[in-house]
Amino acid sequence: MAEKAEAQKDAKREAKQPEKKRARADDNVVFVGKKPTMSYVLAVITQFSSGVKEVHLKARGKSISRAVDVAEVVGNRFVNDLNKKIDIGTEKIHGERDGDLNVSTIQITLSK
Amino acid sequence: MAEKAEAQKDAKREAKQPEKKRARADDNVVFVGKKPTMSYVLAVITQFSSGVKEVHLKARGKSISRAVDVAEVVGNRFVNDLNKKIDIGTEKIHGERDGDLNVSTIQITLSK
Repeated sequence: MAEKAEAQKDAKREAKQPEKKRARADDNVVFVGKKPTMSYVLAVITQFSSGVKEVHLKARGKSISRAVDVAEVVGNRFVNDLNKKIDIGTEKIHGERDGDLNVSTIQITLSK
Repeated sequence: MAEKAEAQKDAKREAKQPEKKRARADDNVVFVGKKPTMSYVLAVITQFSSGVKEVHLKARGKSISRAVDVAEVVGNRFVNDLNKKIDIGTEKIHGERDGDLNVSTIQITLSK
């Protein structure tokens, strides 16, 4: 019984690892969600002042307009000569009840 | 009395004209607001089938995410090989109570 619990723990640990690695590799990615705009602005500024030259803002659905706000605030108030490259796309979300849903995504690449 | 009514009618007609002209000049611009996404998709498709090669989607504030939805739906479901060029910006709005407000804008240029 104890062995089984141990095995389950191991399985959990293994399942979590790829996520952690991914988070580390995407260090200069800021996912924009439902927090106030300025939290994400701060995250971007922090990235830039840590020496990173490029920050990727990502958002989907209704948060897309907030991602645009973040890019504009950073460019107008904090970083001069900010370059913005914008891509939009569609992602399939597997809903549990409604079947597949399409959701729009945006990726704004900010570079100094 | 009848003359006065006639004069008022004339005045109304004249006041309406500039608006009409503007609408004609901006014929290939679709302003995205709070209507359902598919209304704007239909507007874009109508523009394209009338022979226009480029349609500009414009939106500001929270409607930005809907403008992205419109571009994605047109590109994925209706028009093959759609080119999208995206610009973002900031507009100052003169609020009556709160003073000036900054609002983000997006312009998506769709071309076949």
